Amino acid sequence: MLHFDSDYMEGAHPLVLEALLADAGHQHVGYGLDEVCDEARERIREACGCPQAEVWFLQGGTQTNRTVIAASLRPYEGIVAAQSAHINVHEAGAIEDSGHKVMPLPQHQGKIDAEELERFLDDFRRDENHDHMVHPGMVYISHPTEFGTLYSADELKRISHVCRDFGIPLYLDGARLGYGVAADGTDVTLKTVAETCDVFYIGGTKVGALFGEAVVIARPGMIPAFFTQMKLNGALLAKGWLLGLQFRTLFTDDLYTHIARHADEQAMRIREGFLTKGYDLPFDSPTNQQFLTVDDDTLARLREHATLSFWERTDDGRTTIRFATSWATKAEDVDALLALI
Amino acid sequence: MLHFDSDYMEGAHPLVLEALLADAGHQHVGYGLDEVCDEARERIREACGCPQAEVWFLQGGTQTNRTVIAASLRPYEGIVAAQSAHINVHEAGAIEDSGHKVMPLPQHQGKIDAEELERFLDDFRRDENHDHMVHPGMVYISHPTEFGTLYSADELKRISHVCRDFGIPLYLDGARLGYGVAADGTDVTLKTVAETCDVFYIGGTKVGALFGEAVVIARPGMIPAFFTQMKLNGALLAKGWLLGLQFRTLFTDDLYTHIARHADEQAMRIREGFLTKGYDLPFDSPTNQQFLTVDDDTLARLREHATLSFWERTDDGRTTIRFATSWATKAEDVDALLALI
Amino acid sequence: MLHFDSDYMEGAHPLVLEALLADAGHQHVGYGLDEVCDEARERIREACGCPQAEVWFLQGGTQTNRTVIAASLRPYEGIVAAQSAHINVHEAGAIEDSGHKVMPLPQHQGKIDAEELERFLDDFRRDENHDHMVHPGMVYISHPTEFGTLYSADELKRISHVCRDFGIPLYLDGARLGYGVAADGTDVTLKTVAETCDVFYIGGTKVGALFGEAVVIARPGMIPAFFTQMKLNGALLAKGWLLGLQFRTLFTDDLYTHIARHADEQAMRIREGFLTKGYDLPFDSPTNQQFLTVDDDTLARLREHATLSFWERTDDGRTTIRFATSWATKAEDVDALLALI
Amino acid sequence: MLHFDSDYMEGAHPLVLEALLADAGHQHVGYGLDEVCDEARERIREACGCPQAEVWFLQGGTQTNRTVIAASLRPYEGIVAAQSAHINVHEAGAIEDSGHKVMPLPQHQGKIDAEELERFLDDFRRDENHDHMVHPGMVYISHPTEFGTLYSADELKRISHVCRDFGIPLYLDGARLGYGVAADGTDVTLKTVAETCDVFYIGGTKVGALFGEAVVIARPGMIPAFFTQMKLNGALLAKGWLLGLQFRTLFTDDLYTHIARHADEQAMRIREGFLTKGYDLPFDSPTNQQFLTVDDDTLARLREHATLSFWERTDDGRTTIRFATSWATKAEDVDALLALI
Repeated sequence: MLHFDSDYMEGAHPLVLEALLADAGHQHVGYGLDEVCDEARERIREACGCPQAEVWFLQGGTQTNRTVIAASLRPYEGIVAAQSAHINVHEAGAIEDSGHKVMPLPQHQGKIDAEELERFLDDFRRDENHDHMVHPGMVYISHPTEFGTLYSADELKRISHVCRDFGIPLYLDGARLGYGVAADGTDVTLKTVAETCDVFYIGGTKVGALFGEAVVIARPGMIPAFFTQMKLNGALLAKGWLLGLQFRTLFTDDLYTHIARHADEQAMRIREGFLTKGYDLPFDSPTNQQFLTVDDDTLARLREHATLSFWERTDDGRTTIRFATSWATKAEDVDALLALI
Repeated sequence: MLHFDSDYMEGAHPLVLEALLADAGHQHVGYGLDEVCDEARERIREACGCPQAEVWFLQGGTQTNRTVIAASLRPYEGIVAAQSAHINVHEAGAIEDSGHKVMPLPQHQGKIDAEELERFLDDFRRDENHDHMVHPGMVYISHPTEFGTLYSADELKRISHVCRDFGIPLYLDGARLGYGVAADGTDVTLKTVAETCDVFYIGGTKVGALFGEAVVIARPGMIPAFFTQMKLNGALLAKGWLLGLQFRTLFTDDLYTHIARHADEQAMRIREGFLTKGYDLPFDSPTNQQFLTVDDDTLARLREHATLSFWERTDDGRTTIRFATSWATKAEDVDALLALI
Repeated sequence: MLHFDSDYMEGAHPLVLEALLADAGHQHVGYGLDEVCDEARERIREACGCPQAEVWFLQGGTQTNRTVIAASLRPYEGIVAAQSAHINVHEAGAIEDSGHKVMPLPQHQGKIDAEELERFLDDFRRDENHDHMVHPGMVYISHPTEFGTLYSADELKRISHVCRDFGIPLYLDGARLGYGVAADGTDVTLKTVAETCDVFYIGGTKVGALFGEAVVIARPGMIPAFFTQMKLNGALLAKGWLLGLQFRTLFTDDLYTHIARHADEQAMRIREGFLTKGYDLPFDSPTNQQFLTVDDDTLARLREHATLSFWERTDDGRTTIRFATSWATKAEDVDALLALI
Repeated sequence: MLHFDSDYMEGAHPLVLEALLADAGHQHVGYGLDEVCDEARERIREACGCPQAEVWFLQGGTQTNRTVIAASLRPYEGIVAAQSAHINVHEAGAIEDSGHKVMPLPQHQGKIDAEELERFLDDFRRDENHDHMVHPGMVYISHPTEFGTLYSADELKRISHVCRDFGIPLYLDGARLGYGVAADGTDVTLKTVAETCDVFYIGGTKVGALFGEAVVIARPGMIPAFFTQMKLNGALLAKGWLLGLQFRTLFTDDLYTHIARHADEQAMRIREGFLTKGYDLPFDSPTNQQFLTVDDDTLARLREHATLSFWERTDDGRTTIRFATSWATKAEDVDALLALI
């Protein structure tokens, strides 16, 4: 059986595992106050061109989104996000559980539009009843999006510009950030992200780590007492150095981008293979998630030999499915997949 | 100046004030545990044909929605409501502040559709990822809606039927319930509401009381420890009998429906007056809120002599406005308003 | 039957009722944005010697405590209060429901001690694990306390001084503030309160109003978007002018203090009467709540003719009870009570 | 330098690391739905003698406490715990952040007393004002406690009996449960815990795992939708099998107890060593945390060569310190420590 259902089906990259092994027998202080974490922080700051940034390590995506957002907002504030955003659909209401509304904007292949954002914020400001409404207190985007799509540097800058005009911080969910910056043709680097966003996270769980996400607060001090806020959200790992070890490894010799590029390349092979055979691409994703619309016969044939994600049933009776590759995807598995169509 | 901006611009109906005055010098125990409240409860149960109901008195609409919903749901549950629902737009995120997502359905002149509700609940149940999503835990409707429109008894029964099929309680926000049941041509009575809904409230603030809303839990025991839950939401009035006095008066000799009918009649006069002059009705409201689309000249002329609510700018450059009448609206004020067009 | 169980057993002072009546037939805009509220605000600012203060009107004590505290604190902050504080014991966990810990200090007849507060804050600051602990974010006192006792001006200043040293706002719960400032021998006035506290409320419900509390933010701007935060806590009254009318009346010709003094005087008569007969006073209250320790025979005799509050069973087999007087207490009822012992 | 400051200073037991390594290259479905987790669950059920139990894997102690408690309680309920409980002091208000009060009971070397618990619950039930108070909704104990002490089986049964009498579930925090059941002289096994508690967790982070805690719901179904509640608390690990691998290893051939016993033995050596030299034991701990009271000279000498935890300054000018051992503590390090005194 071939497995393309998600990008977190395997443990860690061999170099990450090796780092964990090499640490066996060493003792560290807890909670990320150790030297390994400090080294990892320093490398991340360098990679982001952001020497002043605060860097914190958490354990998973929903946890990170919840913690960053709840720690940033006041009780009367909500977070603006695409209708399709992970925080709006697939985090079991973690944001609302922490007391905040997700304020949906239209999504365009998973992205929000700077002009629509500006109009939304402006409408709120002008609405004579806005004191009876949730105040937009943060803007959330993800890069890549849920649909694998990417913002251009220009799009990010325009969104950032709107946010700064309205005095609202911009937060980028980078669960798959590696697969974004490694994509062919993108002009968005980690530095672009650090310049345009006030806070973002660099996903480890889906990009080579056993688990872990690195939160980068580009505007230090913007979130008060973040350590304590991590703790109260259950997001402070006792053995913090385990996260430090993983991120230090991923940010040595650019391993993070390197392994992400492999995943993107395998995804492009899937894309080309299906396109060649005449299948439709509902979204134009240059990253490790590929969406394809297939007829029932194809679907049945694929499912016999491969796991994949169901996305949606189309109006014309076909099915859109998703294949996810990762740093660990084998070229021969892609070959085998393409042989099925 | 004429005032048609809202239905809570005046104090209480004279009989309500009289009851408050007549009570001066009497002493009562607090928190609604007094005999006046018990009498009010009994009359409400009778009016609703619901002898077993629990009845509780709270102080305002947002407070009541927040308290009922937060007291009913578990942390992983949200409340399904029309996109345009008051709880989704104009309660400053009170529901989310209490930890729960408002799950929007399409609105049709402020109403939800039973079939769309069923499809939504069914889709959730079938979604293989639904354990990662907010569970629908209650359905919210308002009657009249934000647009002054009414459900028919058949529509309510169909929605109720869907809710019971899925084991999800139905909650009706009756901030303007009097104006609903008093409307010409409706087949929905308080008894219809009590039969179809698991919990609802009868609005006093907008229908003759100084302030106050009566929550009716038609299925007693469905919300545990509601007294304590009112307290912790800041919704337990120390001098509870003040609410009892008001509701006892409103539910004596059917005063509640009687004064609501007056408001509806005045609203119908506004409606007819504008229709006669050729103005457009964007929504078909048989209750005390009338929405009209007017050109800029008319708007300017109206605003010189009357206060009203702005609703929205239409695509063709006109403005939809709202006039609200109440139990206190004077017929001569409506005459004066109609003389302006 | 005589009734001394609480200070909120009767409606409103006749002048307050009269003001509500006189307003009948007038129309106002909602939510406290009307002129009556503005006049009430102005008089409160004058009485407090605090021309810059923000003044807001809410409906009850628990609601006010919850709203002020939740609106002030960040998620990692708690509120320091006496072990016996109303918010710690008798508000059904409203503070915790809003996400914040009540951090208890020892109580001394209901009061906290400035030195113990300083030591607590200092210990927190020095604790090497304090990043794993709730941060003290506000200090709560009540005046009078739950035991009817009063701070001296010097005690208030010392507590205020500690709070300012540590950069933590001081909040005073004045549910019975009138009975405090009207007490014989106190050197604490409304001005003292406004000078020493950052935010406080002036209780109306227990001191002459039908219902209502006036929040005074002596340091304006310290709570962001308070209007919206009132709304989301269900604490924004639609017909806000009802609160304005009541407080405008109470703060005309010093009615507030005047009627409170009457209650204190009647309480002193109870106190003297019991003391003369040899009964014990467990707490030294100069205000409208009097605590007395009585034997079982006396208790039985009292209960036959009067309602009162049970406080606690003493170790020696007697019972401490509480009598509460109010602006409405009749001198002849006190005569009748004293005749029972 | 010797390190005795905590029991989570080293990664994982070699066999656990080996299991993680052996899994490299394998693919799994996410979120704990894999076969490895199922095998781990089965072994835990066996070890607990509790074939019907639900078993879930989370990542850390504070996260687990927050998730279990928030998922169990209704909004008006709090959790009863010792004054010194970790949830009351060192979890940064995670429980309150989730909306619930920690209701403190006296602690006796970290333990609560069944009779005091019964009196507390009975007092609540009898209190005529209890509807204005937080309702006790769960009882929390830890075993071992914060002081390293243990309940006897009889003490656990008595507490359990009280809880069942009052219909309140009992939750046991087993962050160090291994060190408890492995202690010399204890009559409490995992089976005792499963018989007396309704829900508990078996700590992995401090007992041989890289990270991870196993929640055992002995009364299945008592917490609704726990999977979704884990998700919304940020406690659902994407690569859930990593936790399964660790717990499967720890519960193979009783590795869990075996490695815990080593830690306890080394702790006993420290205890004996200090006692022999005449030092005082403020608490009587049979587990891996040893508390000792030392004079300033000894403290200075120890700190030169070893890290340890400061506990408190005693009234007579000495200092109580804590040494923690773990599964990884080397006997020669204990030798070296004892050589210092």
